[in-house]
Amino acid sequence: MSTQAPEQPVDDLYKIRHSVAHVLAQAVQRLWPTVKITLGPPIDYGAYYDFLFDQPISEEDFPKIEKEMRKIINQGQTFRRDDLTAEEAKKYWKERKQPFKVELIEDLEKSQHITEVTHYANIGLKGEETFVDLCRGGHVESTKEIPADAFKIMSLAGAYWRGDEKREQLTRIYVAAFRSKKELEEYQTMMEEARKRDHRKLGKELDLFIFSDDVGPGLPLWTPRGTIIADAIETLAKETEAEGGYLRVRTPHVAKGQLYEKTGHLAHYRETMFPPMKLGDDEGEYFLKPMNCPHHHQIFASGLRSYRELPMRLAEYGHCYRSEGSGALFGLMRVRSLTMNDAHIYCTEEQFEEEFNAVLRMYLKYFELFDIKKYVMRLSLHDPKELGKKYVDAPALWLKTEDMVRSAMKKSGIDYVEVPDEAAFYGPKIDVEVWSAIGREFTLATNQVDFDVPGKLGLKYIDKDGSEKVPICIHRAPLSTHERLIGFLIEQFAGLFPLWLAPVQVALIPVAGAHEAYAKDLERRMKEQGIRTQVMDPADSLGKRVREGEKWKIPYLLVIGDKEAESKSVAVRNVSTKQQVTVPFEEFVAKTAEDIRERRLRASIG
Amino acid sequence: MSTQAPEQPVDDLYKIRHSVAHVLAQAVQRLWPTVKITLGPPIDYGAYYDFLFDQPISEEDFPKIEKEMRKIINQGQTFRRDDLTAEEAKKYWKERKQPFKVELIEDLEKSQHITEVTHYANIGLKGEETFVDLCRGGHVESTKEIPADAFKIMSLAGAYWRGDEKREQLTRIYVAAFRSKKELEEYQTMMEEARKRDHRKLGKELDLFIFSDDVGPGLPLWTPRGTIIADAIETLAKETEAEGGYLRVRTPHVAKGQLYEKTGHLAHYRETMFPPMKLGDDEGEYFLKPMNCPHHHQIFASGLRSYRELPMRLAEYGHCYRSEGSGALFGLMRVRSLTMNDAHIYCTEEQFEEEFNAVLRMYLKYFELFDIKKYVMRLSLHDPKELGKKYVDAPALWLKTEDMVRSAMKKSGIDYVEVPDEAAFYGPKIDVEVWSAIGREFTLATNQVDFDVPGKLGLKYIDKDGSEKVPICIHRAPLSTHERLIGFLIEQFAGLFPLWLAPVQVALIPVAGAHEAYAKDLERRMKEQGIRTQVMDPADSLGKRVREGEKWKIPYLLVIGDKEAESKSVAVRNVSTKQQVTVPFEEFVAKTAEDIRERRLRASIG
Repeated sequence: MSTQAPEQPVDDLYKIRHSVAHVLAQAVQRLWPTVKITLGPPIDYGAYYDFLFDQPISEEDFPKIEKEMRKIINQGQTFRRDDLTAEEAKKYWKERKQPFKVELIEDLEKSQHITEVTHYANIGLKGEETFVDLCRGGHVESTKEIPADAFKIMSLAGAYWRGDEKREQLTRIYVAAFRSKKELEEYQTMMEEARKRDHRKLGKELDLFIFSDDVGPGLPLWTPRGTIIADAIETLAKETEAEGGYLRVRTPHVAKGQLYEKTGHLAHYRETMFPPMKLGDDEGEYFLKPMNCPHHHQIFASGLRSYRELPMRLAEYGHCYRSEGSGALFGLMRVRSLTMNDAHIYCTEEQFEEEFNAVLRMYLKYFELFDIKKYVMRLSLHDPKELGKKYVDAPALWLKTEDMVRSAMKKSGIDYVEVPDEAAFYGPKIDVEVWSAIGREFTLATNQVDFDVPGKLGLKYIDKDGSEKVPICIHRAPLSTHERLIGFLIEQFAGLFPLWLAPVQVALIPVAGAHEAYAKDLERRMKEQGIRTQVMDPADSLGKRVREGEKWKIPYLLVIGDKEAESKSVAVRNVSTKQQVTVPFEEFVAKTAEDIRERRLRASIG
Repeated sequence: MSTQAPEQPVDDLYKIRHSVAHVLAQAVQRLWPTVKITLGPPIDYGAYYDFLFDQPISEEDFPKIEKEMRKIINQGQTFRRDDLTAEEAKKYWKERKQPFKVELIEDLEKSQHITEVTHYANIGLKGEETFVDLCRGGHVESTKEIPADAFKIMSLAGAYWRGDEKREQLTRIYVAAFRSKKELEEYQTMMEEARKRDHRKLGKELDLFIFSDDVGPGLPLWTPRGTIIADAIETLAKETEAEGGYLRVRTPHVAKGQLYEKTGHLAHYRETMFPPMKLGDDEGEYFLKPMNCPHHHQIFASGLRSYRELPMRLAEYGHCYRSEGSGALFGLMRVRSLTMNDAHIYCTEEQFEEEFNAVLRMYLKYFELFDIKKYVMRLSLHDPKELGKKYVDAPALWLKTEDMVRSAMKKSGIDYVEVPDEAAFYGPKIDVEVWSAIGREFTLATNQVDFDVPGKLGLKYIDKDGSEKVPICIHRAPLSTHERLIGFLIEQFAGLFPLWLAPVQVALIPVAGAHEAYAKDLERRMKEQGIRTQVMDPADSLGKRVREGEKWKIPYLLVIGDKEAESKSVAVRNVSTKQQVTVPFEEFVAKTAEDIRERRLRASIG
């Protein structure tokens, strides 16, 4: 159902989803015979297909499309491969008034000099052709193999033909398709949960960050409550990095264009950078930094370095800027200002493996802290065809560095997959994909090896034998950016953060005016221990204050009445477990301070 | 010696310095009869005069100029005032081939419609005119009143006529002039000490910060050692502000032009801002933020605020950018990237005085921590003539707000002076001038009141009576910027920082290989206490290691030999006092940790 794209991994589920796309297109064509068909690839939960309709369709049409699809499935149509010359295929589609298919074949002829294409035809029980698509194959044998109760049309979206906003606007129909009804239901439950946990929705409800039209899209401003979370993460990073022997630096957010000419960013990365600022004729252009590395390299280069100073690990929570298109921006997940947990490790070849693996161990520590149970590491390699274009033209160094990373990965014992053509322009990288508590996938952290830029900027150290050598540089950002990590954590914890991250950790709810003095006393005592507290507005009823505390997702609500004041205890409501227990106040403070200090996932009382 | 400038405060020292400028010009004219004279005002340590010489002069000419000046002083020349019409004066200077004086008079005629000017002539013992200048007066009676042993030519510099780089380049001669030889010597000692303490020199020697040609001028990069100091100051600010009830926020470094149109920054402040970045036709221009206030205002405006939330104090160590001309840049003292100890306090009129004074108390706390003994607060007011130009056009609000600030200052009991025409465009401000340990003056912190921008951006709160009101905003930055404060502290402490600020607090010097294990053990123990340590390279001799520790200005050097290892003690060399004492190691650790925690000025051992 697609064009002559590179071969995809074809497993059973892929075949089902690929076939579902054909079934969807056939059903739509039956219902709207004049529709123009375009393309429809499988995706990670099913497939989509893009159509040009004469009249707009709506969600109300979903049941009738699904009914038609079920009919086709039940007919047990088979798939027949037909090999055609490009000329024959173009003629075929022209006769059927399908201009997008003609254009696709013309493009294949032009760009890849292809002279033959394949069609796949669906064949009904009587041997009749029910639907034909331009396609490379990878289907089930019979549409009966598609579980008829395990697919569902999910949504409609607009999409430009070939992603070009100057071309036709098409209608994209998304179908979820799984192996079984149970899997489909699990997926639907996850999506329902994801909607409830949407970081944009919760971010607003919990007052964690805002966007401002006057500041601009993709530029989040962290409110006091969100800043507490960002600060807590930054403190975690700084402590962990200090233990790991990192040194902290601070660098400005701009640099001259000449720096990015030297590093190659302007050649390889310019379209992602903010446009230049021209600061007077004699000074040339200044750019917002898209990455911290060139600045850190300046600090490394500022002294005569000896092998005894390596590995040198320079860390900064650097704030970078990238000019994502306004259409691509999405909440905290795709932004223009990125506060990165960045560091650059300058080391010798001998030190590389240990440094690389120490970074991987840091990842694992963070996964535990954030309750990330499923993750995969993707080793992104270069594509030899793109040398000198997407990638620096150093074929031998690419292979050598990729081998070093592969070998280090193997020794780490961590599972990983290799992916071609996704490296950074200056070297291979590890991208870390994690799954949230509800099973959604996020690309979080990154770990890159740079064999190119240090040399271009003249970085060097004097080795034991007195010779000058260029250090290898590991770029790493295990906590990703504040923006993306906090977006992930909001979904991960559904806004009910572990104590150490919660903007307010303990709410105090005095039952009546008589208990306010005791509440204030408790608040003071907790503040001394660095516990973030809030006395809920006494003007409200007890019930309303408890509901407010739950709405704001404050981990502990302490209700304080006569009994508690008398016995120096507190009635603790744990908002996560919904348990309520009464404990001596000093025990509560000690345990809570410890939970916070140890960054425990679960609040241990109640 | 100057043009018809606004009246200056004329005290004895001013008269001496003003007269010295005439004496200098006369001496130069005697030695180089064809020299063209221009202008020469008094300055805070003497005076200067700008000349156009036919041939360049050099420092080697200083003794002969000084000798000539001394002759003039000893002659006891008097000053005679002559009133002339502008026409007569121009004729006088034309005849004497002094075109700069003619131009000055022409300018006075044009810009101020002046028709009469005054000359001051020096008169010798025989009644002869020895020197004439265009001048408003303010001299000693006789040159004999100038102490002949209390002046000294200090330096030469280039200066464009009227500061215009398209005009003639003049030679500026600086003279120091005081009431007594002792005062002159004190000044010379201070300047000598200032040279030794120069923050650019020490910054390099102690590896605290660097500049990079590729990053750009005025954009310091903080090395690991400098970052420790910046981090320590930031921690101080955050702790102090948390105690003061401030909330922290985080905002991006850019915003759309439309924000700065609304606030008035583009109208009043554009020339100080970095030039715009044009991010695609549909998005308009983006600017680097020159101040944090507009961003903080967005956060205040993001919720419906009640009087119960006020005062709301939003704090951020915000990083701002200002496009200072490259010629004005000076080390850390005048930069283009400013890391500001910023906060904005939104309050009601009734709360203003207490909030304002709480800020002043914060200043005093910081002065004590940094050993700042002399300071003055300058209340900078608007100039009614500049309303609608330099200042927002709201005369009644200016007067009201200035009165509020004046009244708060008076109640604070802190000395202050009033200065016209130095306010921010949106309200009056307090600038804080401090003197370093060697008596040099720095303008550090600022405290501004904004009665204008909050209203322009629609900030409001619901008052007790249900009505909407616009909050007053106090902008405050008591710790100034990292750049300026650290520049000041380097001079203040001559690079030998108090323990809590020192990049390395304790150096360990094991006498021989046998003591290295004990040294490592001590190091580990100190690191547990958060004490920053360094084991000096054992390859070097004991003497060299002590000198290295002193060179790096590490507060404590611990020498560890047999005796110390045996008795679990350390021989402590206090680099500031140069005392050496032996104390039990645990006592050393406990006292040092306490000195650091309490941010004490003096290291208490030795």
